[in-house]
Amino acid sequence: MSIITLTTDFGLKDHFVGALKGKILSEFREATIVDISHHIDLFNTPEASYIVEAAYRNFPKGTVHLIGVDAELTNESRHIAMQWNDHYFICSDNGILSILTQKIVPQKIVAINIHSRFGDDATEMDVFTKVAIHLAKGGLLNVIGREITEIKSIHQLQPTISGNKDKTILRGYVVYIDHFGNCVTNITKKLFKEVGLGRDYEITFNTKTIKRINRNYSDFKLNNPFSLKDYEGEKLALFNEAGFLEIALYRSNPSTVGSARSLLGLKYRDVVCITFTTPENLKENI
Amino acid sequence: MSIITLTTDFGLKDHFVGALKGKILSEFREATIVDISHHIDLFNTPEASYIVEAAYRNFPKGTVHLIGVDAELTNESRHIAMQWNDHYFICSDNGILSILTQKIVPQKIVAINIHSRFGDDATEMDVFTKVAIHLAKGGLLNVIGREITEIKSIHQLQPTISGNKDKTILRGYVVYIDHFGNCVTNITKKLFKEVGLGRDYEITFNTKTIKRINRNYSDFKLNNPFSLKDYEGEKLALFNEAGFLEIALYRSNPSTVGSARSLLGLKYRDVVCITFTTPENLKENI
Amino acid sequence: MSIITLTTDFGLKDHFVGALKGKILSEFREATIVDISHHIDLFNTPEASYIVEAAYRNFPKGTVHLIGVDAELTNESRHIAMQWNDHYFICSDNGILSILTQKIVPQKIVAINIHSRFGDDATEMDVFTKVAIHLAKGGLLNVIGREITEIKSIHQLQPTISGNKDKTILRGYVVYIDHFGNCVTNITKKLFKEVGLGRDYEITFNTKTIKRINRNYSDFKLNNPFSLKDYEGEKLALFNEAGFLEIALYRSNPSTVGSARSLLGLKYRDVVCITFTTPENLKENI
Repeated sequence: MSIITLTTDFGLKDHFVGALKGKILSEFREATIVDISHHIDLFNTPEASYIVEAAYRNFPKGTVHLIGVDAELTNESRHIAMQWNDHYFICSDNGILSILTQKIVPQKIVAINIHSRFGDDATEMDVFTKVAIHLAKGGLLNVIGREITEIKSIHQLQPTISGNKDKTILRGYVVYIDHFGNCVTNITKKLFKEVGLGRDYEITFNTKTIKRINRNYSDFKLNNPFSLKDYEGEKLALFNEAGFLEIALYRSNPSTVGSARSLLGLKYRDVVCITFTTPENLKENI
Repeated sequence: MSIITLTTDFGLKDHFVGALKGKILSEFREATIVDISHHIDLFNTPEASYIVEAAYRNFPKGTVHLIGVDAELTNESRHIAMQWNDHYFICSDNGILSILTQKIVPQKIVAINIHSRFGDDATEMDVFTKVAIHLAKGGLLNVIGREITEIKSIHQLQPTISGNKDKTILRGYVVYIDHFGNCVTNITKKLFKEVGLGRDYEITFNTKTIKRINRNYSDFKLNNPFSLKDYEGEKLALFNEAGFLEIALYRSNPSTVGSARSLLGLKYRDVVCITFTTPENLKENI
Repeated sequence: MSIITLTTDFGLKDHFVGALKGKILSEFREATIVDISHHIDLFNTPEASYIVEAAYRNFPKGTVHLIGVDAELTNESRHIAMQWNDHYFICSDNGILSILTQKIVPQKIVAINIHSRFGDDATEMDVFTKVAIHLAKGGLLNVIGREITEIKSIHQLQPTISGNKDKTILRGYVVYIDHFGNCVTNITKKLFKEVGLGRDYEITFNTKTIKRINRNYSDFKLNNPFSLKDYEGEKLALFNEAGFLEIALYRSNPSTVGSARSLLGLKYRDVVCITFTTPENLKENI
């Protein structure tokens, strides 16, 4: 039996999340249900996209990820289920999965077509629940949907590359601001390596510059008589555990000392640039 | 073994909810515990009443619902356990269950009388935990309490009906504002049908009027060249999945574009009226 | 198989908590995981210390408590695992456990030394997860660490005692403010009894005085014609269910009528004094 994860914008005050779990347990008493987040900004599909991408990798293969964000069935948004990298994702076809499908081609996608089996009062979550239970029990995608090959994409999650023989500019932007006020960009470690090719680099945003990527938050070159405490509030860049470049402050706290968001003035969608400089002796190879 | 659900005003920052689960698991290691909400407004029994009503129906029969809101045992508030519609509810006798008992007569209610079995340092939650485990394991109500027939009622959850042969006015009010800023009233679909008898109607609140109840949030009569996107922020009325009339904005977001609460100026306890108009040819039948 | 509890400052919006559970379930599919709190104030080790102390006692012996607060491995903070009062605690050696070790001597403490078994991209939570699963399955501490005898202590959690033959002053301060706005001090019931020896007392803070400790929140001496309702907003002192002296308001609500924090002006770290007065006839015995 596979795990079922939940990612929604339902919040935790209302009965919605409890009701969703009740629906699942009513039909599948042994289900293992794990909350990823219920605090996705309302209807914010790019944010849901990032959270699902960052979370899924921590679960075993076969896990079913139910995404209840902007999930109303309309003529403009089908309900879909996707098998991808041996995980299953159930959501509305509103672009939420594009951060995944940019990286790896899906194994199979279906447009869910079991809606007519439900009564008039059924909700989106009744349909998603039924599909999630079916897949968690090892059921086939073809039983609950018709195979399709195209789904919607959110292009705003894509960084751009430009440059000349002297330098290359990798331009991404802030796609998520986390609980610590750290600013996550859409630049992955993989892309950084592919574009950078080991060259020198400089990271710029607003009027700030960072010339080194930390291996972890406390990775400062400590010189006597300084201790880590002296670096509190210091700005830094690192690839977070989900593989994305993050601009952070060491030991930040949005509600007291401040964070990358508040002190560096970074906002959602702000540009972060990495400029790679080609050494003289290598210019002809680029 | 039945599921145990938790609805409290404990919040999620403190150790209270974790402690409650620890108490349950200490005595009943295989328990399935589901959180409904821990963000009930402090001591707000009408709000807890609505949330429990909206949530319980999603769980299988036999589920035990523990309600930790305003639960201190005093001379004025007994602890009670109720079997109702084949579900169990454990709470203080402070009116929380009246939204349920208005609809269906309870199968059995007991005043919990096992307090003397606990030490001086025992809390309300020690007692509720013991009762919840007993019931979840299939125990009888009579073992943990003395049967009673009357419990306290909150009358504010009741809508009123008035009118003459030309029209009928169904007057309810906002009993809950959800995470999306949508305003839930105490008017049920069942009451709407019973009072309306299929007549024309108009919903009014503040200075606003709505003449149609949507089947779902996106149920707008789309005319070319309009798409759903053009309806974002449009006010609408619908019966929510718990069966209550809700005043909403299409794709609202309280923290950005606004919500029914912020943009329509609706507050907790505000009046929402439905005026049913009797067609000329039917007036004599009313 | 033991329960694993989680106490972190990760918040619930990001994917961090879901990811942590996914890591645990990936290796230990039958794990029982219970959230204590994910809303610890960022990097606030005294707050985490209080929450863990208040929560652990509600779980069965053998439970494994994973504490993800200020957990980055640095030269200044080792990762440790402690067996204490037949419970296990996994955290950074940053003082979080000192509120426990003040009371009872640990059975065993180890400095975790399995970091080299992980790849470069491993996080603190990969290490803590591995240790938690090992212990929850009944594994020995020596397998995952090297025994040590000393860990860091946070002294700010200690109250002080002063006085003369006429009176004794027990001086503590506010270490935690809960969801209800109640102010928890670092004065335990045990210390109160040991120092007070049954003498008369007076509790003072700011310009306020309380002369009686309630047995519970509603423990007022009711005189006709007063009912409990007349005591709403009344200040009171009591030992909370975790055994710490708490300054509270009866039926407070920080977001509406106010709380001990807002109405009595108490803040984190504010001093609360208990002055015990020795009766004349006993002065020579003190």
